[in-house]
Amino acid sequence: MTTLSPTPRTTLTRKKHRAATDRAHLHEVLDQGMICHLGLVLNGSPVVLPTGYGRDGDTLYLHGSTGSGNLRAAATGADVCVTVTLLDGIVYARSLNNHSMNYRSAVVHGRARDVQDPDEKMHGLHVVTEHLAPGSWEHARAVNAKEFASVSVLALDLGEASVKLRDGGPSEEPEDVASDHIWAGVVPVQTIFGAPVSADYVPDGAPIPAHVNREPAR
Amino acid sequence: MTTLSPTPRTTLTRKKHRAATDRAHLHEVLDQGMICHLGLVLNGSPVVLPTGYGRDGDTLYLHGSTGSGNLRAAATGADVCVTVTLLDGIVYARSLNNHSMNYRSAVVHGRARDVQDPDEKMHGLHVVTEHLAPGSWEHARAVNAKEFASVSVLALDLGEASVKLRDGGPSEEPEDVASDHIWAGVVPVQTIFGAPVSADYVPDGAPIPAHVNREPAR
Repeated sequence: MTTLSPTPRTTLTRKKHRAATDRAHLHEVLDQGMICHLGLVLNGSPVVLPTGYGRDGDTLYLHGSTGSGNLRAAATGADVCVTVTLLDGIVYARSLNNHSMNYRSAVVHGRARDVQDPDEKMHGLHVVTEHLAPGSWEHARAVNAKEFASVSVLALDLGEASVKLRDGGPSEEPEDVASDHIWAGVVPVQTIFGAPVSADYVPDGAPIPAHVNREPAR
Repeated sequence: MTTLSPTPRTTLTRKKHRAATDRAHLHEVLDQGMICHLGLVLNGSPVVLPTGYGRDGDTLYLHGSTGSGNLRAAATGADVCVTVTLLDGIVYARSLNNHSMNYRSAVVHGRARDVQDPDEKMHGLHVVTEHLAPGSWEHARAVNAKEFASVSVLALDLGEASVKLRDGGPSEEPEDVASDHIWAGVVPVQTIFGAPVSADYVPDGAPIPAHVNREPAR
Protein backbone atom coordinates (compact mmCIF):
# COMPACT_ATOMS: atom_id res chain seq x y z
CA MET A 1 0.00 0.00 0.00
CA THR A 2 1.69 3.17 -1.13
CA THR A 3 -1.18 5.64 -0.85
CA LEU A 4 -3.06 6.79 2.22
CA SER A 5 -6.67 5.57 2.19
CA PRO A 6 -8.84 8.37 3.48
CA THR A 7 -11.55 7.75 6.04
CA PRO A 8 -13.99 10.43 7.20
CA ARG A 9 -11.71 11.52 10.02
CA THR A 10 -8.58 11.63 7.90
CA THR A 11 -10.15 13.50 4.99
CA LEU A 12 -9.25 17.16 5.14
CA THR A 13 -12.31 19.36 5.05
CA ARG A 14 -10.43 22.49 4.04
CA LYS A 15 -7.17 23.48 2.34
CA LYS A 16 -7.31 20.12 0.61
CA HIS A 17 -4.40 21.13 -1.59
CA ARG A 18 -2.29 20.77 1.52
CA ALA A 19 -3.06 17.10 1.86
CA ALA A 20 -0.30 14.69 0.91
CA THR A 21 -1.58 11.33 -0.16
CA ASP A 22 1.66 9.46 -0.61
CA ARG A 23 2.53 7.01 2.13
CA ALA A 24 6.17 8.04 1.74
CA HIS A 25 5.24 11.50 3.05
CA LEU A 26 3.70 9.94 6.14
CA HIS A 27 6.81 7.89 6.78
CA GLU A 28 9.06 10.90 6.25
CA VAL A 29 7.22 13.08 8.75
CA LEU A 30 7.16 10.32 11.34
CA ASP A 31 10.83 9.52 10.81
CA GLN A 32 11.99 13.13 11.05
CA GLY A 33 9.95 14.00 14.14
CA MET A 34 11.32 13.24 17.56
CA ILE A 35 8.31 13.56 19.83
CA CYS A 36 4.71 12.71 19.06
CA HIS A 37 1.66 14.13 20.78
CA LEU A 38 -0.59 11.31 21.95
CA GLY A 39 -4.24 12.25 22.38
CA LEU A 40 -6.74 10.18 24.28
CA VAL A 41 -10.02 10.67 26.08
CA LEU A 42 -9.89 10.34 29.89
CA ASN A 43 -13.12 10.72 31.83
CA GLY A 44 -14.70 12.33 28.81
CA SER A 45 -12.00 14.99 28.41
CA PRO A 46 -9.19 15.14 25.86
CA VAL A 47 -5.62 14.69 27.10
CA VAL A 48 -2.58 15.40 24.91
CA LEU A 49 0.82 14.19 26.05
CA PRO A 50 4.29 14.31 24.50
CA THR A 51 5.49 10.75 23.96
CA GLY A 52 8.51 8.97 22.49
CA TYR A 53 7.94 6.75 19.51
CA GLY A 54 9.49 4.99 16.56
CA ARG A 55 8.26 3.55 13.27
CA ASP A 56 8.77 0.16 11.68
CA GLY A 57 7.03 -0.16 8.34
CA ASP A 58 3.41 0.72 8.94
CA THR A 59 3.53 0.23 12.69
CA LEU A 60 4.18 3.02 15.15
CA TYR A 61 5.59 1.94 18.50
CA LEU A 62 5.01 4.10 21.57
CA HIS A 63 6.92 3.67 24.75
CA GLY A 64 6.28 4.52 28.36
CA SER A 65 6.33 3.36 31.93
CA THR A 66 3.83 0.80 33.17
CA GLY A 67 3.22 3.35 35.94
CA SER A 68 1.82 5.91 33.52
CA GLY A 69 -1.95 6.14 33.86
CA ASN A 70 -2.26 7.76 30.47
CA LEU A 71 -0.33 5.04 28.74
CA ARG A 72 -2.36 2.41 30.56
CA ALA A 73 -5.52 4.15 29.35
CA ALA A 74 -4.18 4.19 25.80
CA ALA A 75 -3.44 0.47 26.07
CA THR A 76 -7.03 -0.49 26.80
CA GLY A 77 -7.98 -0.36 23.15
CA ALA A 78 -9.66 3.05 23.26
CA ASP A 79 -9.28 5.37 20.31
CA VAL A 80 -6.09 7.38 20.27
CA CYS A 81 -4.77 10.08 17.99
CA VAL A 82 -1.05 10.51 17.45
CA THR A 83 0.19 13.71 15.83
CA VAL A 84 3.72 14.61 14.75
CA THR A 85 4.41 18.14 13.56
CA LEU A 86 7.55 19.50 11.91
CA LEU A 87 7.77 23.28 11.76
CA ASP A 88 9.76 24.30 8.69
CA GLY A 89 9.36 28.06 8.50
CA ILE A 90 7.55 31.24 9.46
CA VAL A 91 5.80 32.77 6.46
CA TYR A 92 5.73 36.58 6.42
CA ALA A 93 3.20 37.91 3.93
CA ARG A 94 2.61 41.56 3.10
CA SER A 95 -0.79 41.23 4.78
CA LEU A 96 -1.12 40.06 8.36
CA ASN A 97 -3.94 37.76 7.34
CA ASN A 98 -1.69 35.78 5.00
CA HIS A 99 1.03 35.20 7.56
CA SER A 100 1.40 31.47 7.97
CA MET A 101 3.71 28.62 8.87
CA ASN A 102 5.44 26.11 6.66
CA TYR A 103 5.01 22.76 8.30
CA ARG A 104 4.45 19.07 7.78
CA SER A 105 2.14 17.19 10.09
CA ALA A 106 1.01 13.60 10.34
CA VAL A 107 -2.16 12.61 12.19
CA VAL A 108 -2.76 8.93 12.94
CA HIS A 109 -6.02 7.57 14.30
CA GLY A 110 -6.49 4.11 15.69
CA ARG A 111 -6.56 1.83 18.64
CA ALA A 112 -3.27 1.05 20.25
CA ARG A 113 -2.31 -2.50 21.03
CA ASP A 114 -0.45 -3.25 24.27
CA VAL A 115 2.43 -5.39 23.02
CA GLN A 116 2.71 -8.47 25.23
CA ASP A 117 4.74 -10.85 23.09
CA PRO A 118 8.29 -10.57 24.49
CA ASP A 119 9.96 -10.68 21.08
CA GLU A 120 7.76 -7.99 19.62
CA LYS A 121 8.04 -5.92 22.78
CA MET A 122 11.84 -6.05 22.61
CA HIS A 123 11.62 -5.21 18.90
CA GLY A 124 9.40 -2.22 19.76
CA LEU A 125 11.94 -1.00 22.32
CA HIS A 126 14.64 -1.35 19.69
CA VAL A 127 12.63 0.67 17.20
CA VAL A 128 11.84 3.43 19.71
CA THR A 129 15.46 3.58 20.95
CA GLU A 130 16.94 3.73 17.47
CA HIS A 131 14.52 6.48 16.54
CA LEU A 132 15.50 8.58 19.56
CA ALA A 133 19.18 7.70 19.78
CA PRO A 134 20.48 5.90 16.68
CA GLY A 135 23.38 3.62 17.53
CA SER A 136 22.57 3.30 21.22
CA TRP A 137 21.03 -0.15 20.91
CA GLU A 138 24.44 -1.59 20.04
CA HIS A 139 26.45 0.70 22.29
CA ALA A 140 24.61 0.80 25.61
CA ARG A 141 23.95 -1.83 28.26
CA ALA A 142 21.01 -4.05 27.28
CA VAL A 143 17.64 -4.03 28.99
CA ASN A 144 17.47 -6.51 31.87
CA ALA A 145 14.42 -8.50 32.94
CA LYS A 146 13.33 -6.08 35.65
CA GLU A 147 13.65 -3.09 33.34
CA PHE A 148 11.85 -4.96 30.58
CA ALA A 149 8.91 -5.57 32.91
CA SER A 150 8.77 -1.93 33.95
CA VAL A 151 8.07 -0.52 30.51
CA SER A 152 5.09 -0.70 28.21
CA VAL A 153 5.22 -0.76 24.46
CA LEU A 154 2.14 0.12 22.46
CA ALA A 155 1.72 -0.58 18.76
CA LEU A 156 -0.44 1.57 16.52
CA ASP A 157 -1.19 0.65 12.94
CA LEU A 158 -0.68 3.42 10.39
CA GLY A 159 -3.71 2.38 8.37
CA GLU A 160 -5.74 5.47 9.19
CA ALA A 161 -3.53 8.49 8.80
CA SER A 162 -3.33 11.83 7.04
CA VAL A 163 -0.49 14.16 6.19
CA LYS A 164 -0.83 17.90 5.74
CA LEU A 165 1.85 20.31 4.69
CA ARG A 166 2.50 23.84 3.62
CA ASP A 167 5.67 24.94 1.91
CA GLY A 168 6.92 27.69 -0.37
CA GLY A 169 6.52 31.45 -0.14
CA PRO A 170 3.65 33.57 1.08
CA SER A 171 0.27 33.74 -0.60
CA GLU A 172 -0.75 37.32 -1.27
CA GLU A 173 -3.81 39.29 -2.27
CA PRO A 174 -3.38 41.10 -5.61
CA GLU A 175 -3.36 44.55 -3.96
CA ASP A 176 -0.51 43.50 -1.67
CA VAL A 177 1.77 42.32 -4.45
CA ALA A 178 1.99 45.99 -5.48
CA SER A 179 3.04 47.13 -1.98
CA ASP A 180 6.76 47.12 -2.45
CA HIS A 181 7.50 48.74 0.92
CA ILE A 182 6.37 45.70 2.88
CA TRP A 183 8.81 42.81 3.14
CA ALA A 184 7.57 39.29 2.49
CA GLY A 185 9.27 35.95 2.58
CA VAL A 186 10.06 32.98 4.74
CA VAL A 187 12.23 32.59 7.83
CA PRO A 188 13.32 28.95 7.89
CA VAL A 189 13.00 27.03 11.16
CA GLN A 190 15.30 24.12 11.81
CA THR A 191 15.84 21.67 14.64
CA ILE A 192 19.53 20.99 15.23
CA PHE A 193 21.64 18.85 17.51
CA GLY A 194 24.44 20.45 19.49
CA ALA A 195 27.80 18.97 20.39
CA PRO A 196 27.52 16.04 22.83
CA VAL A 197 28.09 16.92 26.49
CA SER A 198 29.61 14.03 28.45
CA ALA A 199 28.13 13.14 31.82
CA ASP A 200 30.30 14.22 34.76
CA TYR A 201 31.17 10.59 35.63
CA VAL A 202 32.57 9.91 32.15
CA PRO A 203 36.38 9.99 32.46
CA ASP A 204 38.12 13.07 31.08
CA GLY A 205 39.43 12.40 27.60
CA ALA A 206 37.15 9.42 26.98
CA PRO A 207 36.31 9.36 23.28
CA ILE A 208 32.85 10.44 22.22
CA PRO A 209 31.47 7.65 20.02
CA ALA A 210 30.61 8.54 16.45
CA HIS A 211 26.93 7.68 16.79
CA VAL A 212 26.25 10.59 19.15
CA ASN A 213 27.77 13.19 16.85
CA ARG A 214 24.54 13.80 15.06
CA GLU A 215 23.77 15.63 11.87
CA PRO A 216 21.20 18.41 11.91
CA ALA A 217 17.84 16.78 12.46
CA ARG A 218 16.35 18.43 9.40
CA MET B 1 -1.50 34.06 41.28
CA THR B 2 2.07 32.91 40.93
CA THR B 3 1.72 29.20 41.56
CA LEU B 4 -0.15 26.60 39.56
CA SER B 5 -3.13 25.26 41.47
CA PRO B 6 -3.33 21.54 40.85
CA THR B 7 -6.60 19.85 39.97
CA PRO B 8 -6.95 16.07 39.61
CA ARG B 9 -6.15 16.18 35.91
CA THR B 10 -3.15 18.47 36.30
CA THR B 11 -1.61 16.57 39.21
CA LEU B 12 1.20 14.36 38.03
CA THR B 13 0.71 10.79 39.12
CA ARG B 14 4.32 9.78 38.57
CA LYS B 15 7.76 11.39 38.36
CA LYS B 16 6.34 14.16 40.53
CA HIS B 17 9.81 15.62 40.91
CA ARG B 18 9.48 16.65 37.29
CA ALA B 19 6.52 18.91 38.02
CA ALA B 20 7.17 22.62 38.00
CA THR B 21 4.75 24.53 40.12
CA ASP B 22 5.78 28.06 39.36
CA ARG B 23 3.52 29.98 37.02
CA ALA B 24 6.60 31.57 35.49
CA HIS B 25 7.61 28.14 34.16
CA LEU B 26 4.24 27.79 32.46
CA HIS B 27 4.59 31.18 30.84
CA GLU B 28 8.14 30.43 29.72
CA VAL B 29 7.21 27.18 28.00
CA LEU B 30 4.22 28.75 26.27
CA ASP B 31 6.25 31.77 25.18
CA GLN B 32 9.16 29.73 23.80
CA GLY B 33 7.01 27.24 21.90
CA MET B 34 5.81 28.06 18.43
CA ILE B 35 3.07 25.51 17.79
CA CYS B 36 0.65 24.01 20.27
CA HIS B 37 -1.14 20.71 19.93
CA LEU B 38 -4.86 21.20 20.46
CA GLY B 39 -6.74 18.12 21.60
CA LEU B 40 -10.48 17.74 21.47
CA VAL B 41 -13.06 14.99 21.32
CA LEU B 42 -14.93 14.64 18.03
CA ASN B 43 -17.60 11.95 17.75
CA GLY B 44 -16.16 10.28 20.81
CA SER B 45 -12.62 10.06 19.44
CA PRO B 46 -9.62 12.19 20.32
CA VAL B 47 -8.24 14.55 17.68
CA VAL B 48 -4.89 16.34 18.06
CA LEU B 49 -4.05 19.19 15.72
CA PRO B 50 -1.11 21.57 15.45
CA THR B 51 -2.36 25.10 16.00
CA GLY B 52 -0.94 28.60 16.20
CA TYR B 53 -1.31 30.47 19.45
CA GLY B 54 -0.10 33.31 21.62
CA ARG B 55 -0.26 34.20 25.30
CA ASP B 56 -1.35 37.38 27.05
CA GLY B 57 -1.08 37.11 30.83
CA ASP B 58 -3.07 34.05 31.81
CA THR B 59 -5.03 33.82 28.59
CA LEU B 60 -4.00 31.69 25.65
CA TYR B 61 -5.34 32.78 22.28
CA LEU B 62 -5.76 30.23 19.50
CA HIS B 63 -6.30 31.21 15.93
CA GLY B 64 -7.83 29.52 12.94
CA SER B 65 -10.15 29.77 10.01
CA THR B 66 -13.90 29.90 10.54
CA GLY B 67 -13.98 27.09 7.97
CA SER B 68 -12.12 24.72 10.27
CA GLY B 69 -14.48 22.11 11.67
CA ASN B 70 -12.08 21.29 14.46
CA LEU B 71 -11.79 24.88 15.57
CA ARG B 72 -15.56 25.24 15.40
CA ALA B 73 -15.87 22.17 17.59
CA ALA B 74 -13.37 23.61 20.05
CA ALA B 75 -15.39 26.84 20.13
CA THR B 76 -18.58 25.15 21.34
CA GLY B 77 -17.40 25.10 24.93
CA ALA B 78 -16.35 21.47 24.98
CA ASP B 79 -13.29 20.48 26.96
CA VAL B 80 -10.00 20.99 25.16
CA CYS B 81 -6.42 20.20 26.05
CA VAL B 82 -3.58 22.33 24.72
CA THR B 83 -0.04 20.99 24.98
CA VAL B 84 3.22 22.74 24.13
CA THR B 85 6.44 20.72 24.23
CA LEU B 86 10.02 21.97 23.96
CA LEU B 87 12.61 19.28 23.31
CA ASP B 88 15.92 20.33 24.87
CA GLY B 89 18.12 17.26 24.54
CA ILE B 90 18.55 13.56 23.97
CA VAL B 91 19.82 11.84 27.11
CA TYR B 92 22.19 8.93 26.50
CA ALA B 93 22.60 6.77 29.59
CA ARG B 94 24.92 3.79 29.92
CA SER B 95 21.83 1.59 30.08
CA LEU B 96 19.23 1.61 27.34
CA ASN B 97 16.50 1.77 29.93
CA ASN B 98 17.73 5.11 31.29
CA HIS B 99 17.87 6.79 27.92
CA SER B 100 15.57 9.76 28.07
CA MET B 101 14.79 13.21 26.74
CA ASN B 102 15.29 16.60 28.30
CA TYR B 103 12.15 18.56 27.68
CA ARG B 104 9.73 21.08 29.05
CA SER B 105 6.02 20.62 28.45
CA ALA B 106 2.93 22.57 29.40
CA VAL B 107 -0.52 20.99 29.42
CA VAL B 108 -3.56 23.24 29.71
CA HIS B 109 -7.09 21.95 30.28
CA GLY B 110 -10.22 24.03 29.93
CA ARG B 111 -13.06 25.17 27.77
CA ALA B 112 -12.22 27.55 25.01
CA ARG B 113 -14.25 30.69 24.53
CA ASP B 114 -15.05 31.85 20.99
CA VAL B 115 -14.04 35.50 21.13
CA GLN B 116 -16.82 37.61 19.62
CA ASP B 117 -16.08 41.07 20.96
CA PRO B 118 -14.34 42.85 18.06
CA ASP B 119 -11.80 44.60 20.27
CA GLU B 120 -10.79 41.44 22.09
CA LYS B 121 -10.77 39.50 18.84
CA MET B 122 -8.40 42.03 17.26
CA HIS B 123 -6.29 41.91 20.42
CA GLY B 124 -6.18 38.11 20.18
CA LEU B 125 -5.01 38.32 16.56
CA HIS B 126 -2.34 40.79 17.66
CA VAL B 127 -1.16 38.42 20.40
CA VAL B 128 -1.06 35.40 18.07
CA THR B 129 0.71 37.35 15.31
CA GLU B 130 3.33 38.80 17.64
CA HIS B 131 3.99 35.35 19.06
CA LEU B 132 4.54 33.86 15.60
CA ALA B 133 6.18 36.81 13.87
CA PRO B 134 7.28 39.54 16.29
CA GLY B 135 7.25 42.95 14.61
CA SER B 136 4.86 42.00 11.85
CA TRP B 137 1.87 43.68 13.45
CA GLU B 138 3.46 47.09 12.88
CA HIS B 139 5.13 46.22 9.58
CA ALA B 140 2.52 44.40 7.54
CA ARG B 141 -0.78 45.47 6.02
CA ALA B 142 -3.57 45.49 8.62
CA VAL B 143 -6.44 43.03 8.66
CA ASN B 144 -9.44 44.27 6.70
CA ALA B 145 -13.10 43.65 7.54
CA LYS B 146 -13.50 40.66 5.24
CA GLU B 147 -10.35 39.01 6.57
CA PHE B 148 -11.38 39.79 10.13
CA ALA B 149 -14.68 37.96 9.59
CA SER B 150 -12.94 34.94 8.08
CA VAL B 151 -10.90 34.06 11.15
CA SER B 152 -11.82 32.72 14.54
CA VAL B 153 -10.04 33.52 17.76
CA LEU B 154 -10.48 31.27 20.77
CA ALA B 155 -9.47 32.19 24.30
CA LEU B 156 -8.41 29.62 26.86
CA ASP B 157 -7.82 30.48 30.48
CA LEU B 158 -4.58 29.17 31.96
CA GLY B 159 -6.20 28.41 35.31
CA GLU B 160 -5.87 24.64 34.98
CA ALA B 161 -2.41 23.83 33.74
CA SER B 162 0.64 21.76 34.58
CA VAL B 163 4.27 21.94 33.59
CA LYS B 164 6.62 19.00 33.48
CA LEU B 165 10.30 19.07 32.72
CA ARG B 166 13.43 17.02 32.71
CA ASP B 167 16.89 18.49 32.53
CA GLY B 168 20.46 17.60 33.45
CA GLY B 169 22.48 14.49 32.76
CA PRO B 170 21.46 10.85 32.64
CA SER B 171 20.24 8.86 35.63
CA GLU B 172 22.19 5.64 36.03
CA GLU B 173 21.99 2.41 37.95
CA PRO B 174 24.94 1.93 40.32
CA GLU B 175 26.36 -0.96 38.26
CA ASP B 176 26.42 1.22 35.15
CA VAL B 177 28.37 4.05 36.72
CA ALA B 178 31.31 1.62 36.86
CA SER B 179 31.07 0.79 33.14
CA ASP B 180 33.60 3.24 31.83
CA HIS B 181 33.53 1.87 28.28
CA ILE B 182 29.99 3.10 27.64
CA TRP B 183 29.56 6.77 26.81
CA ALA B 184 26.86 8.75 28.56
CA GLY B 185 25.78 12.32 28.30
CA VAL B 186 23.39 14.68 26.59
CA VAL B 187 23.08 15.78 22.98
CA PRO B 188 21.43 19.21 23.07
CA VAL B 189 18.51 19.88 20.73
CA GLN B 190 17.80 23.40 19.62
CA THR B 191 15.29 25.08 17.36
CA ILE B 192 16.87 27.81 15.27
CA PHE B 193 15.80 30.36 12.71
CA GLY B 194 17.64 30.58 9.40
CA ALA B 195 18.38 33.65 7.33
CA PRO B 196 15.22 35.25 5.87
CA VAL B 197 14.44 34.28 2.27
CA SER B 198 12.67 37.07 0.38
CA ALA B 199 9.63 36.20 -1.71
CA ASP B 200 10.30 36.22 -5.44
CA TYR B 201 8.16 39.34 -5.95
CA VAL B 202 10.21 41.37 -3.47
CA PRO B 203 12.48 43.69 -5.53
CA ASP B 204 16.13 42.69 -5.66
CA GLY B 205 18.13 44.65 -3.13
CA ALA B 206 15.12 45.56 -1.00
CA PRO B 207 16.27 45.76 2.61
CA ILE B 208 15.29 42.95 4.94
CA PRO B 209 13.68 44.56 7.99
CA ALA B 210 15.35 44.00 11.34
CA HIS B 211 12.37 42.26 12.89
CA VAL B 212 12.68 39.21 10.62
CA ASN B 213 16.35 38.62 11.46
CA ARG B 214 15.53 36.43 14.40
CA GLU B 215 17.68 35.14 17.20
CA PRO B 216 17.82 31.42 17.85
CA ALA B 217 14.43 30.42 19.19
CA ARG B 218 15.92 28.82 22.29
